[in-house]
Amino acid sequence: MKIARFTSGGSDPQFGIVDDEDLVVLAGDPMFQGFETTGERIPLAEARLLAPVIPRSKVVGIGLNYPGVEALLPAGSKTDPVIFLKPNTSVVGPGDAIQLPPVPGRVIHEGELAIVIGAVAKRVPEEDADEVIFGYTIADDVTAIDQMLDDGQWARAKGYDTFCPIGPFIETDLDPRGVPIRTVVDGEERSTGHTRDLVLSIPEIVARVSDVWTLLPGDLILTGSPLGRLEIEPGQRVEIEIGTIGRLVNPTRARG
Amino acid sequence: MKIARFTSGGSDPQFGIVDDEDLVVLAGDPMFQGFETTGERIPLAEARLLAPVIPRSKVVGIGLNYPGVEALLPAGSKTDPVIFLKPNTSVVGPGDAIQLPPVPGRVIHEGELAIVIGAVAKRVPEEDADEVIFGYTIADDVTAIDQMLDDGQWARAKGYDTFCPIGPFIETDLDPRGVPIRTVVDGEERSTGHTRDLVLSIPEIVARVSDVWTLLPGDLILTGSPLGRLEIEPGQRVEIEIGTIGRLVNPTRARG
Repeated sequence: MKIARFTSGGSDPQFGIVDDEDLVVLAGDPMFQGFETTGERIPLAEARLLAPVIPRSKVVGIGLNYPGVEALLPAGSKTDPVIFLKPNTSVVGPGDAIQLPPVPGRVIHEGELAIVIGAVAKRVPEEDADEVIFGYTIADDVTAIDQMLDDGQWARAKGYDTFCPIGPFIETDLDPRGVPIRTVVDGEERSTGHTRDLVLSIPEIVARVSDVWTLLPGDLILTGSPLGRLEIEPGQRVEIEIGTIGRLVNPTRARG
Repeated sequence: MKIARFTSGGSDPQFGIVDDEDLVVLAGDPMFQGFETTGERIPLAEARLLAPVIPRSKVVGIGLNYPGVEALLPAGSKTDPVIFLKPNTSVVGPGDAIQLPPVPGRVIHEGELAIVIGAVAKRVPEEDADEVIFGYTIADDVTAIDQMLDDGQWARAKGYDTFCPIGPFIETDLDPRGVPIRTVVDGEERSTGHTRDLVLSIPEIVARVSDVWTLLPGDLILTGSPLGRLEIEPGQRVEIEIGTIGRLVNPTRARG
């Protein structure tokens, strides 16, 4: 099932289930209020899609979680998967502009499968990971990569406003072990990958992260990005396709 | 004015103004609903104090913001003040136990003056910093320091549940330029410092952080900690005194 969060004709944000070309409107946030429908249907083409969830607590990232990504780092850097945080103020939705701040050096896009947590999760064993996962979405872990390397700490360079586009939908039925990832900028393929190559699997990630932090419903875990030619600049169009979730599209522009 | 968040006799959390030995109960959260009182007074001794704010978006930390703190880091490390994030799930209140997880090496306490943001703040110039500051509280930036040095990234080692005690009050009238900081563990003085020694001043911090991230009401910025003998272990009592804000006291125990 694909869940959207959207507005339509100036409405407050609502949730809906994607059914062919329509959204079947839900009575409330399905993460907290279940899947009761209002009976209303809205054509998908008339809806303005929003970030499908606003994390109330954490956007967690897993760095260095695909083979070869250590090539981005200085020689001698640690290459084990690493946990970092992005602030929820970096989250935007489908179609929203990625605003590139005036930082020195390159800014890159990173197309990633994102886990949407649906329950309070504390020290969850790998075999129970599915019980705390609400679904999956697409995330772009936008990163001011040269500033990140210069800072040492990743929080600033990965945390700017608009540096975490997510969407367009939450897919509740995905098998995360077999999902292709592809990014395209201005029509040109920039990276391809597959979740079978994840260094830490989805259950391992949930176990490891929930051992450190209590995860709350709505928290996101970005599972890492495959390598590619990832630089972006103002005036481009970034597309990320992940399996059956769909395609997340965001334009880029210079921060005003 | 000192603001407390508290429960009393099993009540829902309420807010109050400290008046001698009493709390003057407020009609709502003063950050959003002003300072209207209900007329009720509750003896401070009968209130259970809570974390005075739960950040809805960010707990920002400023590392390396007192002279000499670079001595904690490996030779050759960058020593400019650095921005990092702690998750809001690390926040606990006065009297709550700091739970020490089974990590290798030392865990330390760091007594810090914390800025409580009271308005949406985006690229705020230094001279306007006061307009977005609701007040100040005390924070303990608890850190698994050896794990932090091993990880490289600070998010995990500073982000465990209970690793950000705050309180006991928010002081709205503090002049942050002249505030002594003192920490005591089991009655023994462990560190002393003074905010006049801050590398980045409070207005500089607000300007710098709000240039990176939009700050939201309730966000905290931990301004850094002076040096000292900071190691803690289970079964201790950690006290942090900062100027007129008061004293934040937390016991420590091993994580269950």
